Amino acid sequence: MSLTVVGSIAFDSVRTPFGERERMLGGSAVHFALSARLFTDVHVVGPVGDDFSQEHIELLSERGIDVSGIERVPGGETFVWRGHYEYDLNVAHTDETRLNVFGEFEPKLSDASRSAETLFLANIQPDLQRRVRGQCEGARLAALDSMNLWIETARDSLVAAIGEVDCLILNDAEVRQLTEEANLARAAAAAMEMGPRVIVAKQGEYGSAMFTEDGFFALPGFPLEDVRDPTGAGDSFAGGFLGYLDGQGVIGPGGAGEVDHQTLRLAMAHGTVLASFNVEDFGTERIARLGRDEIDQRLRELQAMTAFG
Amino acid sequence: MSLTVVGSIAFDSVRTPFGERERMLGGSAVHFALSARLFTDVHVVGPVGDDFSQEHIELLSERGIDVSGIERVPGGETFVWRGHYEYDLNVAHTDETRLNVFGEFEPKLSDASRSAETLFLANIQPDLQRRVRGQCEGARLAALDSMNLWIETARDSLVAAIGEVDCLILNDAEVRQLTEEANLARAAAAAMEMGPRVIVAKQGEYGSAMFTEDGFFALPGFPLEDVRDPTGAGDSFAGGFLGYLDGQGVIGPGGAGEVDHQTLRLAMAHGTVLASFNVEDFGTERIARLGRDEIDQRLRELQAMTAFG
Repeated sequence: MSLTVVGSIAFDSVRTPFGERERMLGGSAVHFALSARLFTDVHVVGPVGDDFSQEHIELLSERGIDVSGIERVPGGETFVWRGHYEYDLNVAHTDETRLNVFGEFEPKLSDASRSAETLFLANIQPDLQRRVRGQCEGARLAALDSMNLWIETARDSLVAAIGEVDCLILNDAEVRQLTEEANLARAAAAAMEMGPRVIVAKQGEYGSAMFTEDGFFALPGFPLEDVRDPTGAGDSFAGGFLGYLDGQGVIGPGGAGEVDHQTLRLAMAHGTVLASFNVEDFGTERIARLGRDEIDQRLRELQAMTAFG
Repeated sequence: MSLTVVGSIAFDSVRTPFGERERMLGGSAVHFALSARLFTDVHVVGPVGDDFSQEHIELLSERGIDVSGIERVPGGETFVWRGHYEYDLNVAHTDETRLNVFGEFEPKLSDASRSAETLFLANIQPDLQRRVRGQCEGARLAALDSMNLWIETARDSLVAAIGEVDCLILNDAEVRQLTEEANLARAAAAAMEMGPRVIVAKQGEYGSAMFTEDGFFALPGFPLEDVRDPTGAGDSFAGGFLGYLDGQGVIGPGGAGEVDHQTLRLAMAHGTVLASFNVEDFGTERIARLGRDEIDQRLRELQAMTAFG
């Protein structure tokens, strides 16, 4: 089994009430890959500039991530995001976004990346997502994230992109905005009409909800007294969710075919746990040093926190 | 076992995108009692005016609620609340509040009300809550709700009132505001330092979270495609939660003593289910016609929606 992620590779500068970091390794593809690699083989695809060092590459490759799809653009600069969080960490304020090499990015996937059984289209321009989707005909499970910007400026493209994936992973406010339905259950049903058979609504500290034709499932966020930096939590969630699914081997050509609802629930739990580790420290610091034993321990705790009757 | 609730008895005028109602029976004590009566004997205490009809009294008494603590103030008018909800039902807009007879209310509890094993101090001025608490020395489990107004205008009284109860039931934003802690886990720990051993944070459509010394528990809101009027959801939750606990008979003098964590979790599930029925129709309409079989059915569904592994 293997998993390809296409998305941003970035330098993040972040300020929270608990500290400040300049030009940390970040971006949706990076946060996703560092989570997913704990469960399966990951190919990461995205552009970087001359300022992206060997050290950054090694942070990924030393953790078993296939970095051959990271395309270095000569004379270019890596994508930059600068933001801050107030005392209430639930709201991110973006202070600066510079697309840099990402503005001209035209993905050409390697054979290995194209043949992955699972594909994650992280939050990038939806026409770009469609072109990547078109190159990955072998993918048995394709998932997509997006954001309010594309709902507002490229809605038709986004709806077409959503129609080409099996699973939509969005913030719950974005599911509502996309479908113009204030009620989340109705919004999820409307999103399913666009094509995907699995809708995952991320709800920040409140956790996440999943809608499928088999029904509804929800998990709270893992309660933490120390949250240092929420950046990348959503992508870490997606990495845990899809990484676990791909690692289970049920979705590839040699697998058992359809993903059952119980496996999807366990994938939600893995996503929840990975997101919770991600926010415990700045950038990728916590997930980069994370091991399977810590994940399994927290999974058991999450299960104990949600069982009743 | 029996349960006393002290709180508002009101006429609510509500407008939502799904309709409009004038002067419905409402108020925190009413919503609470109509939920709790499905599990145990309930005494409701609060003032009404001359405009409160026999028909309103009977809506409660015909459902087994002890209405002898409803005090009619000659020449007075019943508490009035008028509000509306926008397309997004998560935010209530208050258009009018007239305390009327509630402004002068000084509760004098009957022997039956005083001797209840469980006491719910619904959202009223905290000094009033303390005077009621003082009259109910026999209560083995006392719980309290409040609101941002009292945190802002009567904080010392509120903290003293909280120090005299076993269980605090607040919206999560209010737990944060009360303790000046942005992180909910830390806020709950700080609230527990004030005295209560159980903190329940209501989270609207996201569900609810419970903090005790035994740990954390959370449930999502029950997913509904048709929500008509959210008014009273929090009090219906509290009624299901405390009504179930009292009905289990574990907290009274003849019971097994301490409430265990598993029973508290089941109480959270009952609260969740009662809140979900409450919002399906205007005012008390849905809960007034609710039966135990519907509750048990939805409880099983909630359990199926939250189990994994």
